[in-house]
Amino acid sequence: MSQNIIRGVIAPILTPFHADLAINTARYIAHARHLLSNGCAGLAPFGTTGEAVSLGMDERMKLLDAMVEAGIDPASLIVGTGLPSLPDTAILTRHAVGHSVAGVLVLPPFYYKRVSEEGLYAHYSRLIEDVGSDGLRLYLYHIPQVSGVDLSVPLVEKLRRMFPATLVGIKDSSGDWDNTRALIGIDGLTVYPGSELPLIEAMDLGVPGCISATANLNAAAISKVIRLFDEGKKDEAQQAMEQVKAFRLKIQAHPVIAAQKRLLALTTGKHDWAVVRPPLVPLEESAGHVLASELMVELGFDLSEPAVPAQ
Amino acid sequence: MSQNIIRGVIAPILTPFHADLAINTARYIAHARHLLSNGCAGLAPFGTTGEAVSLGMDERMKLLDAMVEAGIDPASLIVGTGLPSLPDTAILTRHAVGHSVAGVLVLPPFYYKRVSEEGLYAHYSRLIEDVGSDGLRLYLYHIPQVSGVDLSVPLVEKLRRMFPATLVGIKDSSGDWDNTRALIGIDGLTVYPGSELPLIEAMDLGVPGCISATANLNAAAISKVIRLFDEGKKDEAQQAMEQVKAFRLKIQAHPVIAAQKRLLALTTGKHDWAVVRPPLVPLEESAGHVLASELMVELGFDLSEPAVPAQ
Repeated sequence: MSQNIIRGVIAPILTPFHADLAINTARYIAHARHLLSNGCAGLAPFGTTGEAVSLGMDERMKLLDAMVEAGIDPASLIVGTGLPSLPDTAILTRHAVGHSVAGVLVLPPFYYKRVSEEGLYAHYSRLIEDVGSDGLRLYLYHIPQVSGVDLSVPLVEKLRRMFPATLVGIKDSSGDWDNTRALIGIDGLTVYPGSELPLIEAMDLGVPGCISATANLNAAAISKVIRLFDEGKKDEAQQAMEQVKAFRLKIQAHPVIAAQKRLLALTTGKHDWAVVRPPLVPLEESAGHVLASELMVELGFDLSEPAVPAQ
Repeated sequence: MSQNIIRGVIAPILTPFHADLAINTARYIAHARHLLSNGCAGLAPFGTTGEAVSLGMDERMKLLDAMVEAGIDPASLIVGTGLPSLPDTAILTRHAVGHSVAGVLVLPPFYYKRVSEEGLYAHYSRLIEDVGSDGLRLYLYHIPQVSGVDLSVPLVEKLRRMFPATLVGIKDSSGDWDNTRALIGIDGLTVYPGSELPLIEAMDLGVPGCISATANLNAAAISKVIRLFDEGKKDEAQQAMEQVKAFRLKIQAHPVIAAQKRLLALTTGKHDWAVVRPPLVPLEESAGHVLASELMVELGFDLSEPAVPAQ
């Protein structure tokens, strides 16, 4: 069974809202197109950065429908579908699989804490059974500092072993390099680090790229690192990585979602780019100006180019 | 505006499943009737104990429809409706309000962690606005050890002050008596401790009862404590409380949901009472026998009487 593994940087695309909190679909699609034309090899709609769990189920399905109708290639999409319940996760997963997306990215059920490996195994295996599609390509989503639920290496190994055609990969946002390295060691598993920080070390071990929040603003630079690495220019890749790391560290000194949305509001002049849904809160405009200035002055980052087409 | 405040013990009713994980609606309704006839003044469907977030949205709405159609009085129900997203929480809340239930019990959005009070205030105030019904009676659901999200006393106070007709109460499952006492001090707020352990101390300060997981098995004894207290027989209430506390401590030495379901399976002979949905796992049958024996021998608890009618 052939697998469509996306190689490069994948953006967990931000979800723009109108001032009244409704989704700005046109702006979302424009941002998606911009990212795919400016360094991103793929997109991961409905991740943590996309405020996925702050969207309603219907909103998520309609937004994916709209992307595909607008001509975004489903083969470039790894779609977040994980919710706390099996039935609703199955609904979103079936819907995404129906669009022939490259994969789905599935959080563990994230309400109950200190759940057993046996229970998590049962959740994922039951999901695979309930969706019941040969087209399902499932990526686990490991982000324990947010979800509150750990996916241990032995659990991932067991799921990969039991469902080799379906359980194809994992996004590891743990930020724990030892964990990422151990996952890379699992036979046939595609691992995307959830940040660009360990990108070169991870590519040295064979990963095809990363899924990183900051790809919403810095995809061109991240993709340059990957290109240089792929061309065997490792020293130049290391050098290009310096800007990428500095950018990331500046952004993650703030709430990453609100900070990037505020920067997009400032650079595009579209004020409602700064809107986030509760329980998140927007970054203050003044803090956004300070951050933008730091990025431009200290890093020489060009924020004068609007990161997305005017909408 | 008159308020229907339920006085007594309220059971966060367990959700029985068939062996294939489908909801056993007939058994659910039978259990609901049994509880209301045997000590419970009300029910809280779709709480943590009811595995609410492991149920699909449609399942939740259909099960509530079925309860009401079966003649369970909506005025006896405080219905859990909290999900991580505003739109889906609004859908469940409007549906429950449409049944004229006594109230809804609303978790904070529980995916993002370390969110601000401002963001949580925005979530609840926006929910109230979006539901837009004079019939909405909202109880906050504070269970930080599971949800990962704290509802501080100043936040609760502000919500109560800003929405006095709507924000009527809170279930405090923090297990922190200082917190429960501080909440009781908020003007006009109805506080239900999320356990029967501090019941007498809390009634001394004016609370109308408690919402406790173990009411699924021990409602008669808990309600006896409340009755004795209400009759001014405080010494007898304290004495009756000893069995109630001992029972609770025995149960909570195990995973509370799986343990009670296993006990119901053993006492009714209906084996699939023990079924829980992933990510929870059933309590081993042998552990259930040990627990049942301890409850009978050490506490003199009568488990020979099926706790629910045969179904």
